[in-house]
Amino acid sequence: MSRRFDYIHEGAQIYARSFATIRAESNLSRFTPEQEKIAVRMIHACGMVELADDIEFSPDFVAAARDALQKGAPILCDSNMVAHGVTRSRLPAENQVVCTLLEPRVPALAAEIGTTRSAAALELWRNRMDGALVAIGNAPTALFRLLEMIDEGAAPPAAIIGMPVGFVGAAESKDALREYGRVPFGIVKGRKGGSAMAAAAINALASEQE
Amino acid sequence: MSRRFDYIHEGAQIYARSFATIRAESNLSRFTPEQEKIAVRMIHACGMVELADDIEFSPDFVAAARDALQKGAPILCDSNMVAHGVTRSRLPAENQVVCTLLEPRVPALAAEIGTTRSAAALELWRNRMDGALVAIGNAPTALFRLLEMIDEGAAPPAAIIGMPVGFVGAAESKDALREYGRVPFGIVKGRKGGSAMAAAAINALASEQE
Repeated sequence: MSRRFDYIHEGAQIYARSFATIRAESNLSRFTPEQEKIAVRMIHACGMVELADDIEFSPDFVAAARDALQKGAPILCDSNMVAHGVTRSRLPAENQVVCTLLEPRVPALAAEIGTTRSAAALELWRNRMDGALVAIGNAPTALFRLLEMIDEGAAPPAAIIGMPVGFVGAAESKDALREYGRVPFGIVKGRKGGSAMAAAAINALASEQE
Repeated sequence: MSRRFDYIHEGAQIYARSFATIRAESNLSRFTPEQEKIAVRMIHACGMVELADDIEFSPDFVAAARDALQKGAPILCDSNMVAHGVTRSRLPAENQVVCTLLEPRVPALAAEIGTTRSAAALELWRNRMDGALVAIGNAPTALFRLLEMIDEGAAPPAAIIGMPVGFVGAAESKDALREYGRVPFGIVKGRKGGSAMAAAAINALASEQE
């Protein structure tokens, strides 16, 4: 076999070196030990040590999210990329990973409500939202709609991973989540975010193993 | 319905405003008009206008990748997140989107070859690689292995989206692709990259519509 290129082939070694580099180069001092593990895995997913400055967890977030997963709560995701980023073997209770974006009813619902398909897809979460772990890794409209649904009386999830990305509404939707105060949250402030960071947060919460 | 939060609800308007913001704030002057559309969509996927400085396309990349898609070439992805980020309705020829990472044979192959599962999964691409569009959005080992396979005589793909992310091998694997010279490429230099950027590049190549 060609060995023209010299690189590390062993998965566990790649993870260990990556996490060591992140811990050497990132400013993680303001996190608790439990929060730090989530932050490290999120940084690993995007290759940016400076992300540490934009990550914020409510004090109750890690415990609430971990407890929900241990109890078998479903993980409700706004995009299929988030859902497919979850490492099933790390989940503590064979938790269901749900994304309703491609359900056939969603386009009609979006037209009826007057919103995006990403936001309309949350209507199909209603009977599973109570105590769930919610992960928004794509659409600011989905995060805004989630807060509206709770406002309107929907049962709140146990915790919200609020990491939509982009230039219209992303920063504002995460500010709204932080100020909402009724649900434990983990966010990436500003425009940055995305499905890889959201999935990384889930994977870190799911297991103590790095 | 609660309208406590004031935000834009209409998908097309969100896209248009996002792309306008990106074009106003990014330095895109070194790209051709065709390359610029790919770069804009990649920036949209990560929320970072400064990504423009890290994007590099070989001069033949856009034409080669577009031509392959038009002719019905499959899209071979190293991760399920990339595969699930591809908007099927944008594809010009109902192109197959393939990820072999979770095929049952892969763990044994990885042990046999002595590499990661992400790299070993490429063995199952061999009969589809000729003229394909390859998208590496996760694992540096997969990009290195791809170059090794071509070195060993595998039929090269039409173009390679080389955007693995991370702290061990990512920058080096993309440098290797750039220096390889035998296959048109689009890369994000350094540690940055990821499945969302790779999928955004595919979605931009797939259709002229923004």
